[in-house]
Order: sequence, then structure tokens, then C-alpha cells
Amino acid sequence: MTTTSVSLLMIGSELLDGRVLDTNKQRVSQSISDLGLSISGEITVVDNIEDIAEALGYLFQRSRFVICSGGLGPTSDDLTREAIAKYFQKEIFLDNNALRELKELYKRRQRSFDDSNIKQATFPVGATIITNPVGTAAGFYFKDEKQGKIVYALPGVPKELEAMLAESVIPQILSECYQFIPIQKKYLRLFGIPESVVGSKISSLNLPDDVEISYLAAFPEVKVTLKSKRELKKELTRIKSTLGEDHIFSEDINIGLEETVHNLMIDKKITVAVAESCTGGLLGSYMTQKGGSSDYFIGGIIAYSNEVKVRELNIPESTIEQKGAVSHEVALLMAKNIREKYQSSVGISITGIAGPEGGSPAKPVGTFFVGISYGSCAKSYKFLFVSARDFIRRYSGYKALDLLRRTVLALPDPVDSLDIFTFN
Amino acid sequence: MTTTSVSLLMIGSELLDGRVLDTNKQRVSQSISDLGLSISGEITVVDNIEDIAEALGYLFQRSRFVICSGGLGPTSDDLTREAIAKYFQKEIFLDNNALRELKELYKRRQRSFDDSNIKQATFPVGATIITNPVGTAAGFYFKDEKQGKIVYALPGVPKELEAMLAESVIPQILSECYQFIPIQKKYLRLFGIPESVVGSKISSLNLPDDVEISYLAAFPEVKVTLKSKRELKKELTRIKSTLGEDHIFSEDINIGLEETVHNLMIDKKITVAVAESCTGGLLGSYMTQKGGSSDYFIGGIIAYSNEVKVRELNIPESTIEQKGAVSHEVALLMAKNIREKYQSSVGISITGIAGPEGGSPAKPVGTFFVGISYGSCAKSYKFLFVSARDFIRRYSGYKALDLLRRTVLALPDPVDSLDIFTFN
Repeated sequence: MTTTSVSLLMIGSELLDGRVLDTNKQRVSQSISDLGLSISGEITVVDNIEDIAEALGYLFQRSRFVICSGGLGPTSDDLTREAIAKYFQKEIFLDNNALRELKELYKRRQRSFDDSNIKQATFPVGATIITNPVGTAAGFYFKDEKQGKIVYALPGVPKELEAMLAESVIPQILSECYQFIPIQKKYLRLFGIPESVVGSKISSLNLPDDVEISYLAAFPEVKVTLKSKRELKKELTRIKSTLGEDHIFSEDINIGLEETVHNLMIDKKITVAVAESCTGGLLGSYMTQKGGSSDYFIGGIIAYSNEVKVRELNIPESTIEQKGAVSHEVALLMAKNIREKYQSSVGISITGIAGPEGGSPAKPVGTFFVGISYGSCAKSYKFLFVSARDFIRRYSGYKALDLLRRTVLALPDPVDSLDIFTFN
Repeated sequence: MTTTSVSLLMIGSELLDGRVLDTNKQRVSQSISDLGLSISGEITVVDNIEDIAEALGYLFQRSRFVICSGGLGPTSDDLTREAIAKYFQKEIFLDNNALRELKELYKRRQRSFDDSNIKQATFPVGATIITNPVGTAAGFYFKDEKQGKIVYALPGVPKELEAMLAESVIPQILSECYQFIPIQKKYLRLFGIPESVVGSKISSLNLPDDVEISYLAAFPEVKVTLKSKRELKKELTRIKSTLGEDHIFSEDINIGLEETVHNLMIDKKITVAVAESCTGGLLGSYMTQKGGSSDYFIGGIIAYSNEVKVRELNIPESTIEQKGAVSHEVALLMAKNIREKYQSSVGISITGIAGPEGGSPAKPVGTFFVGISYGSCAKSYKFLFVSARDFIRRYSGYKALDLLRRTVLALPDPVDSLDIFTFN
């Protein structure tokens, strides 16, 4: 048994009958290995007390810490509490404080408190409660003082698991590990450059061996992580310069493109209105993802049908007939006219063919145009992103956000635009 | 040991340090459980002979078949062959036929054949080769005749694994299982009723033991799965009736609420326009998720600011001042006016406080109104869903979809609406 090794126990029949893609294994692995600790193994079991308890035994032979995910809900197949109690030969008790808090939470949420929920306030005797800042099910940890083994029981809901891992479990594990050298980490978040290009550009720099680099394609962006036990300033500068600084929208792992644009607009005191066709409101929903977006986002028109484009956005019918609804001309007019109509400093538009039907040899599925009107200039950008409908829509929404960022910061035009139409 | 149970062994350090999201667990689970066989457990191990062999031992105590994924490549950390040979106390041999085929494959692909690749033509003595129709690494299976245990070794590359599973492994497993009875499965997808209530209502039916029921909270909906080796018609009817048929929007695992509404609108020849405030376009993006939505979805107005509500949706300023932008009156007018303006058969609106700021004692964060205008009637529904911004927005978007479905199908009003305002 390595004194600092961690293993994982994923609990839930839905993970073994194909219903659910388990993303928690990677999520927890990432957090733990980011600390410089190793994960020695993982087991997934169905909702069954014997199976859970036996797997615990197997994992504790190989690691000091076991993190469990799932099986803490109120239904009869939620058995993690009972299994951990069985393994350590403890009873289950009802924690009255936890029950009171649980009832208050239900009250605040104006949900009726069903008796089956009482279970969520029960724990093995000797366990320490881990509060859940996001959902209803509290977690807990149990430490076997004699052998130093610790099991952490967390809910399987990704957001809850993630929050409790960061706020409670990781600090607790670190406090148990002596002689711990923290790792330095730097992040780059990019959009508009494929993962393979990012990878080969960074490889060609031949960075020193004590710098570990990993890539993650988290559609539609690419994340790069640099890790080392020493300072990374020099390497970071080289990487940013080879990738092109304009592709990097954030160096904060928690700040995505939506929030980058949100902050930029508020900082520059710019107001925005949108005109969306194929994305049907997705761009507007990106722009309002963060609280306080009313400081810059005015609103917009979802011009899904051509009638709305003509009647509400004043696009001449003749332009749609001659150039098509998916064209530079229509994208430009959508952006100019929404800006005028909604009296915003920027108007931005998307029109495209998200498929699966509607493509043609001249404009295949995946063709889309982003129009942007700002200051005295209006521009439209053409792109082709061949993929499934959902991906085309998300990619074009991100493209619009990125073009807004590039326009406001006077950065170069994106390299993957097929052609650009400017109207002064 | 169940004679027809299968377990999985995922091999690779990249699965435990956060680099890779393991999608094979779900992929294999789905294929196996679709056969009606059960998966008893899964273990993930790092690239280490001892760890692999020990995990094999653990899994064979609990199942007859073990499917391994990964560790068959040419590099020094590919150790699955050696570990399986060690577990069954066999030697490794070089298969000259396999080597010749491997060399020919490299030649056809115009890749140079490095000596390290020879390893890919080695197998434990007694193994049967499983050809790889997609990539270079062949797999194999080894059967312990005395105990009837079988291990299958497949590459970890998803496409290769998938092809070999379908073409070789599944037929081989089925040929080993006599008296094979396929499983019956039924699904229910619900919205507007919490998982705990679903669970306790179904428990109270005391269904027979040969019907396995599982729940999955996939925000914002709840999925229920029934499995049995016999017909499930009677149980399904009882469950539907206790849960309330109106909460069940789909009995097809692949059809969500967005698609249910999409199909319903097209079927009933109803056109829809939306007026969104706090959701900022999310409802429109739900409505356009599927291709062909232009058959029913006209478009809408994202009235995020009050100016847009007044100017574009003709909400009197006095109404906003007196009742607030988040009110029955404003929701109603948004729905009525977007319907009129966009000439659709239905107008639907959302206005709410998604937070984290903007709440008040009278209207806390999570308060939202959905307005709907259809036929000669207009209604507004008030809800309170206390949660984080992202969840409040998604929940209110789903509520609007669900109210559209309920209105068109003349179903009862949702039970969790705090109050309802009708305008005839």
C-alpha cells in the first residue's frame, strides 16, 4: 500500500448497463493527479451492498484513500451508506442536525419533503459529514484510525461531486499527507485552432522533460495544461508565441469564452444585440450565461423563418431570393439592422445550414456566416464546419463570441474564415 | 459466480491520470446489457502486470467472462498479453501467420515496420486470435476449459474495440451461453416530478421481484427503466397510472422533451414563437435542436432589457413599473404580443430571476413565470425553482416546453405551479 495513493469506487447500476457515460472517473483522476498524487485503480460496481463492500476491501489493500461516487440518494437502490457501514462494522445513525438542514433546504426550495428523504440524513457511526454546497445529498468520510485508511462518499451528480471534491476532500487528503510538494500549473484555453495543430506546434518547441504538457479537446475549445514542480514563466511565453496569442482567450481554467466576452463587454462599456437564424437563440443564451449580463446584453431577434428576417429585420425579400438566406449579404444586414433597431453598440448575427437537411453543393451543411456591425464598419465572415447539427450550432455560436472578442480587441481575423465581406 | 455474467477490465495509466475520458465502459456495457446479460463489475488499472493479473483474479471470482480493453499496442507499457499469460500460467509465443499478416498490413499502409511491432503478433499459448478489421493490433481470447472462464483481450481504441466486440466477442459469448433468454426493457421519461417522489410512488406498488426498476435523475428530467425476462405490460400500466400519465413525456429512451414537443407541433400543424427574458434564447435553442424545426418554429424576441420589452413587445411601461418585469402580467403580454407580432398559432414566454443577483423577499432568485397564448386563451404560470443560475435557466426552458405540450394536449396544469393567472 502506497501511503499517498488514492483509488476510486464508482457505484451505480446505470454505469454498467450502458445508460450513463461515466465522466466522474476522469474528473476525479484529473483533480487527484493534478495534486501530484497517484491513482492506483478504479472499480465500478452495481447497487449492491456486498459488491460495494468487497470492492472497498480490494481497493484498501492497494491504496490508503478511497473516493466513492454515487449511491447517496433517497431511493432504495442507494446503498453506499449501508455498504461502508458494513465494511467497517459500524451501525447507521440518523443525524438530527443534518435532517433539520435537509428539511430546511427542501422548504427553501419549496419542495415537499417525502419520508424517503430522511435516509439522506443517515451516516455510519463515526463518520464526518461533508456538506453539499450544490444539491441535497450530503456526503461523508470515515477514517479507520488504526490503519489510517479513509473512505470518502460523495454523490454521483458531477457538479455536486466536483464541488465537494474541491472544497472538502482534496484539502482533507492533503492534510493527511506530509512532505507534500505542490505542483505549479498553467492553463491556456484556445478556440479556432485544432488540437492536432496545438499539439504539433508545442512538440516542435522541445520543452524540457520536467514540464508535463497535456491537451484536452473540450469541444468547441482546446485546453492546454502545463505542470511542473518549478516555475513555468519561460515555457508559457514560448508556447503562447508559437500558438498565436490571439487564439488564447483565457489563461484561467475557470473562465470560458462566454465569460471572457461578458467581462470584456462590461469592461469596454459596449452593448450587444443579436440576430440569430440557425442557432435559434443559442448565441443569446451564451451571452446571458453569467449573472449581470444585462449590463451589456440588450436582447435580440430569433429570425428562424424568412418572414421574420424580412418583416422584423428589414431584409429585402429580393436579397434573400437572389443571394439566399445563408449569405454574406443577409448576415451583414441582420447585424446592421439589429444594431440599429435595438440601439446597441454592436450587432452580431448568425445564419447558416446546420443540417441534416438543407445543404447544396454550393452551400453544404456546415456553411455559416457571422455578421458583425461595430463602429463605422460592418463585416461578414464565411465558415465551413462539417459536423453534426448540434456541433455546427455550438461551433457557430462560439465563432460569433470569438469574432466579437477579436473585433473589440482589434485582433487579426480568424485564420479559418473562408472569405470575408466588408461594408464600410 | 453467475454463469452468464460479464465483467470489464480497462487497462491504461492514461485512464487514471485524467488524460482520457473512458467511453469504452459505457460502449461495452451497452452492447452486453442489450443482450440481456448482466455486467457484474468493472476495474480500471494502470499499465502494470501485477495489477492486471490481480484484477483478473478479482473479476473471475464474480463473473464467467472478462472483457479487457487496452494494453495490446507495441510499446513497453502494453502489458495485457503478459499479464493474461501470467494469470493462466502460460508462456507467450510468436504466431508466424499473424506476423506475416501484420507485416503485409504495414506495407499496404506504407508504414515502416519497426521491430517493436513484432510484439503485436505474440499471444499466450492456447489463445485464439481475434482479427482486427480496423487497426493493426489483433486481439485474442483465452478459455480456461476446466472452469469455463474466458478472457477477451481487445485494443482500447474505441473504433477497433467496437468492431471486434460486435463481430467476434458477442457471437462467441452467446455461443457459450445455453438457454439464453433475452431481456425485455421499458423506459419512462418524466419531467416536473422529483426523483424521490418517483421512487417512493413506484416502491409503494410492491412490484414482483422479477421486475428490476432503476431511476436516473438526468437534470432536468427523471428516467425510469424497467427490466425483466418476461412481458412488462401490466407493471408499466400500474406505474404510469401511479405517477400520473401527464408527467410522462416519452417512452422512448432516445426521444427527449425537445423532440417530443418538436414532433407534437409538426403533427398538430401548430406554429410557435417565443419571447424570452432570463433564458436569453435558450428556449429557442431547445426548439431548434432538431433538423426540420422550421416546420413549426417561426422565431422570437430575446427581450432581455426592459427597453426591448417595451419597444418591441409593446409591454406598457406602467405595467413593468407597477407589477415588475417578472410578473404574471408581463409574462402574459409577452406571450400574447409575440404571437400576434409573429403570426404564430402559439406564443410562449419566460420571464424570471435567474440570479445570482436580483432576488427580493417577494420574488427570490429562482422565481419565474411562463406565459402561453393559444386559441382564445392566455395563461401565465408562476414557479419557484431555487438553484444555481444555469439550472434555473434550463429548468424554466424545460417548463416552457412542457407547458406547450400540456396546453396542446389539454393535459392538467403542472402540480408544482405556485399560482396560475388566466386571461380569456
